[in-house]
Amino acid sequence: MQQPLPPGSSPAPSAEALFVTYRVRADAAGIDGRVRDICVEQTVEVTEPLFRDAFFQDEVLGRVESLQEIAPGDWEAVIRFPADVIAGEVTQLWSVVFGNISLKPGVRVTAVRPTPGLARRLGGPGLGIPGLRAMLGVASRPLLLSALKPMGRSTAELAGYAYALARGGMDILKDDHGITDQRWAPYRERVAACCDAVRRANEETGGRCRYFPTVTAPADQVLDRARFARDHGAGGLLFSPLVGGPDFLRVLGRETGLPVMAHPAMTGAFLGAPDHGVAHDVILGSLMRLSGADLVVFPGFGGRFPFSKDQCRALDRALKDDLSDVLPSLPTPAGGLTLERVPETLAVFGPDVGFLIGSALYERSPDLESNARWFREMVDSRH
Amino acid sequence: MQQPLPPGSSPAPSAEALFVTYRVRADAAGIDGRVRDICVEQTVEVTEPLFRDAFFQDEVLGRVESLQEIAPGDWEAVIRFPADVIAGEVTQLWSVVFGNISLKPGVRVTAVRPTPGLARRLGGPGLGIPGLRAMLGVASRPLLLSALKPMGRSTAELAGYAYALARGGMDILKDDHGITDQRWAPYRERVAACCDAVRRANEETGGRCRYFPTVTAPADQVLDRARFARDHGAGGLLFSPLVGGPDFLRVLGRETGLPVMAHPAMTGAFLGAPDHGVAHDVILGSLMRLSGADLVVFPGFGGRFPFSKDQCRALDRALKDDLSDVLPSLPTPAGGLTLERVPETLAVFGPDVGFLIGSALYERSPDLESNARWFREMVDSRH
Repeated sequence: MQQPLPPGSSPAPSAEALFVTYRVRADAAGIDGRVRDICVEQTVEVTEPLFRDAFFQDEVLGRVESLQEIAPGDWEAVIRFPADVIAGEVTQLWSVVFGNISLKPGVRVTAVRPTPGLARRLGGPGLGIPGLRAMLGVASRPLLLSALKPMGRSTAELAGYAYALARGGMDILKDDHGITDQRWAPYRERVAACCDAVRRANEETGGRCRYFPTVTAPADQVLDRARFARDHGAGGLLFSPLVGGPDFLRVLGRETGLPVMAHPAMTGAFLGAPDHGVAHDVILGSLMRLSGADLVVFPGFGGRFPFSKDQCRALDRALKDDLSDVLPSLPTPAGGLTLERVPETLAVFGPDVGFLIGSALYERSPDLESNARWFREMVDSRH
Repeated sequence: MQQPLPPGSSPAPSAEALFVTYRVRADAAGIDGRVRDICVEQTVEVTEPLFRDAFFQDEVLGRVESLQEIAPGDWEAVIRFPADVIAGEVTQLWSVVFGNISLKPGVRVTAVRPTPGLARRLGGPGLGIPGLRAMLGVASRPLLLSALKPMGRSTAELAGYAYALARGGMDILKDDHGITDQRWAPYRERVAACCDAVRRANEETGGRCRYFPTVTAPADQVLDRARFARDHGAGGLLFSPLVGGPDFLRVLGRETGLPVMAHPAMTGAFLGAPDHGVAHDVILGSLMRLSGADLVVFPGFGGRFPFSKDQCRALDRALKDDLSDVLPSLPTPAGGLTLERVPETLAVFGPDVGFLIGSALYERSPDLESNARWFREMVDSRH
């Protein structure tokens, strides 16, 4: 083997780091090897003889900060990765947290925390909850969101829904995440029409409703679609980070100045096994927040997806609690939220929450505007 | 509710479609509801009263093509999604296959097959196995690959390895997937130096070794890095589609004309539960191929990841068997492949395979060039 980089020839290693908590299944004899394996697999990914030098130990490899057995055969390990390994890249953040190690059984990520310097380099939300509230002119009440749907409706129909819902007092209207560029309502036609509909409604009511089109798209069209949306007056953007690439959350926000809403499509892949994957509050919480989501959509408890109240509480904390000066992201429970469950949802998330109601709002009566107004009044009266 | 689009106002629905096979857990009383739910969740995602019209049934919703109980409580459902739902977008392909439904338990994707017209719109590999072989001038033997590693080595060291391995007769040298733009070997400096090293080696030996740098990067830098690589003589590109966005595979190939190698980082998220997620040969097979990967790296059997021989055989078929005229992708088993396991690996994959050997090649002796030559001669003699 050739020699490693002599210590004098590189800048001093940084104190900045990423701390990742893994829950690992192993017996007492095997646990040291398993956590050592994570330290290696997520950085140098070579066999031991190829990185024995102190340089690798000090500057490149993951290092076990703490290790304890939290249940028989179930360990919690906190591993520190040097920030230099992540190189300030959101993509590399995801890869270091759960890239190669995803391919081994019995490893689940339960927490992710960067030091402040690394957090600053990654960026986080451009606006966060405070910026979003300022933009919408809503100081403290929960935000009200609905979706333009379903796929198959024409541009004129979707724009009609947008007009009615904006007039009824909704704060944010988003495309359904799967409505991208289908022939029934092609992207540019739809976005121009819905922007126009919301603008008209706002002019008539004095409201500040904002429309968030879906910009999940072919990789070389995401930014074009986002710029088109911004130039036509869209008030934000909806993106599915696991489908389109997590770092687009950050890029979309920085490029357009608009708030970016993350959709949970495909995140369920990380949640399907109790002893593998990435915990709810990390995949939809810390990681989305660190990747730049101003709002995060996820299944609320009691809806058509099996998220529990406790998982929702943990997610709420991951999006709002202190995270090395990264701005907080707005939790936006959805997925079959009904009007009746609004009070209970408010009790879990507090007023810093977005209520995203789709079908239930459309179903209440054929008059969407009055449905929206009823919803708005109900929330106003409870706040 | 407003009325659906009148049939006369839209073009005729296409016969093109995507067929997705799901394995679903349910009892006999529940199975119809569960597969109906997939048909709805992956398309219109609204409650039944909002899409009762024939238009939605015929043109938008998924439709159950077949359903059978393959074991007690374990069903196989083939669902047909109209191609119009996918709109020719690789991102929407992933979203329709396993977007929202990933958030529900007991659903596993076991096959994905587009009709030829949809497959053509999606694209698939730009070169595939035949194009790659023509480019490398290797008619029929297995391709030999190694990695430049580990992270922490300097540009000069990595370029030195590239030179030695190219001289020793390797066909392809790739960056380690996690070596992106760290300070030890920044992207542009490293790529320029490694391209130069491989060029020199080729000039000296008359060989055609090609270097594939990692272009997993911030979303707004992926194409810049790829163009830089191409302009400096890189012979291909390595990308982690789950970390960076699957559709970049396609875009990278089309934009540069270079072969694109997919890395499996984070794909393990889909594999952690037996009754949930996406099967090995779909996530690393059909989906990578349809997304444009010319080569797919995955853990070979018997290495440091728990992939079985049967899983590798299925993956091999998914990458090479007929798939609506999409070009075949080269299976590239890795992840602790040792020189001793080469014959057995050849027996599983046949000669259309890439052997990706990292640590084992570096460990054999301090003389990387002679290690590579020994590996090349061993494969030549067995072919």
